[in-house]
Amino acid sequence: MEKENRTELSELGEFGLIKHLTDQILLQNKTSMKGVGDDAAILSAPEGQKILLSTDMLVEGIHFDLSYVPLQHLGYKSVVVNLSDICAMNAIPQQITVSVAMSNRFSLEAMETLYSGIFRACEMYGVDLVGGDTTSSNSGLVISISVIGYAAEEKITTRSGARESELLVVSGDLGGAFLGLQVLEREKKVFLETQGIQPELTGYDYVLERQLKPEARKDIVDLLQILDVKPTSMIDISDGLASEILHLADQSDVGFDLYEEKIPMSPRTAEVADEFNLIRTTCALNGGEDYELLFTIKQSDFDKIKGNPNLTVIGHVTHAASGCRLITLSGEPIALRAQGWDPLR
Amino acid sequence: MEKENRTELSELGEFGLIKHLTDQILLQNKTSMKGVGDDAAILSAPEGQKILLSTDMLVEGIHFDLSYVPLQHLGYKSVVVNLSDICAMNAIPQQITVSVAMSNRFSLEAMETLYSGIFRACEMYGVDLVGGDTTSSNSGLVISISVIGYAAEEKITTRSGARESELLVVSGDLGGAFLGLQVLEREKKVFLETQGIQPELTGYDYVLERQLKPEARKDIVDLLQILDVKPTSMIDISDGLASEILHLADQSDVGFDLYEEKIPMSPRTAEVADEFNLIRTTCALNGGEDYELLFTIKQSDFDKIKGNPNLTVIGHVTHAASGCRLITLSGEPIALRAQGWDPLR
Repeated sequence: MEKENRTELSELGEFGLIKHLTDQILLQNKTSMKGVGDDAAILSAPEGQKILLSTDMLVEGIHFDLSYVPLQHLGYKSVVVNLSDICAMNAIPQQITVSVAMSNRFSLEAMETLYSGIFRACEMYGVDLVGGDTTSSNSGLVISISVIGYAAEEKITTRSGARESELLVVSGDLGGAFLGLQVLEREKKVFLETQGIQPELTGYDYVLERQLKPEARKDIVDLLQILDVKPTSMIDISDGLASEILHLADQSDVGFDLYEEKIPMSPRTAEVADEFNLIRTTCALNGGEDYELLFTIKQSDFDKIKGNPNLTVIGHVTHAASGCRLITLSGEPIALRAQGWDPLR
Repeated sequence: MEKENRTELSELGEFGLIKHLTDQILLQNKTSMKGVGDDAAILSAPEGQKILLSTDMLVEGIHFDLSYVPLQHLGYKSVVVNLSDICAMNAIPQQITVSVAMSNRFSLEAMETLYSGIFRACEMYGVDLVGGDTTSSNSGLVISISVIGYAAEEKITTRSGARESELLVVSGDLGGAFLGLQVLEREKKVFLETQGIQPELTGYDYVLERQLKPEARKDIVDLLQILDVKPTSMIDISDGLASEILHLADQSDVGFDLYEEKIPMSPRTAEVADEFNLIRTTCALNGGEDYELLFTIKQSDFDKIKGNPNLTVIGHVTHAASGCRLITLSGEPIALRAQGWDPLR
């Protein structure tokens, strides 16, 4: 990785590396009683609240390509995708553990860069790193993160509570992360074919940031609390809007009508889709990695969210028998299919 | 892996595989409110108890060698080594999440075998599998497990509570897992050199079982509760007795005198050490992977544990200035050094 100041991980050994990387951690949350340094972390759930637990594994060559993903962004994003899962339960993430396997092609300085992104995300979201594991690997980099959050039982939102005639709402806008990936893949190809011409990324900031440095919508969890809206079901968009709607439908035993004209997309994302000759709606439906929140609310809550620039009503809940349908711009219903990304295919 | 009945993982895809592997899970613990199938699991800490959280990553070629470790045992051991960390806090493990990355050389049937070992461990220890992730990898198998346990705050035992003149106690016996590994490595070499002669493992059951199917000493946590003994500090032996004593010394700011004559070793382990021309004490000190519990108790608790066949007093706590010493059979003190296994070296 780095050409200069290269320190081999083997010089520190496992305990030395953990100590080096975690020595300056200051625990921020009252729920974090003891962090790194013992056989287990000690946590304390807030009085009367339940615990939310989620985990995700990111594998080099499958989930990320280090030829165009900077290690600092990778660290940040690895944390964010996990926090997003806790937000999708309408809960607040407070602790993470981070396990990393890496080959000896990574230096201590490379690990420090990865962890600087991890710590940056912890700081941004008020989350404590309380444990983990570092080990070597014979091949690529693997990052596994677990996250703990808390919420009062009555506030927790699963995927199974959607009921007929409720409204389907999404935060932010869609398709950007997918188009950011297209730009990165194109420039990588140019770079490899022309032996060293620097990639041209100017003007693509929005979609690149959506891909490389996504955010977990903890602000939406806070906003819903302020607006006094309790979603009836919720999921985060990691694999594409279509796939997530099908999950909600399946687990709530309902159908959905989704209106193509309502799907929020930023003007810049739409332009980049056009440039790549990709259908805009397809990018939003199947692109994935936007980490926006998708949820259902009672019709009676509509007035509370109406006009909020962070939230868009994109459809409504129907009977299970009608299935999940996209109502196109011309008013035609088409069956929704999950064509999102699958790490096993 | 298998020659017959081979189903490709890609035929199921990620969601299909997770569903297939986790469909028949029945949650056993009251603290497990919701398991696999949503963005996060929902857990409920027992009234007044704190949460213990630990995580471990196992990498093919570093932590295990599939040429002699059956997948079912690997699944079992992967869970056990994590449960052991919660036991080492004097707490009871109740939930795990399991993330697995595997290349397409693994079939569905191979995954089922791995998970059958994971479920067997869950059943044996009364633990619920409540979440996880499955993904592909370009190379080997990587398993990352997180574990949650609970205990009353006053019962939780860290590494930092040892005080001068207390007794050092270990459960079970030591060195077996290391010698099991020596047997497996020797037979692998014979097998490779002689092209197919079956390995001779008869008569090595004890040390092989210690290596391939170790147990977490949850029974010792229960026993200490029954005996009304609260250890002042505790750690589990994953990297070797010497390394763990040094951790307790470092974090409690004390020294230790360890008596060579007291170190418990099973007669069969001792015989195998002799056969390999290895010094018995060295195997116990640096071998690792025995997953026994090492802890300190007040002298006044000695009568409560005296004569218990599961527990051996092997030394006592001294002043930090005297450091950690092995008192040899001939009565000579030698400085203890950690020469246990390090995945980064």
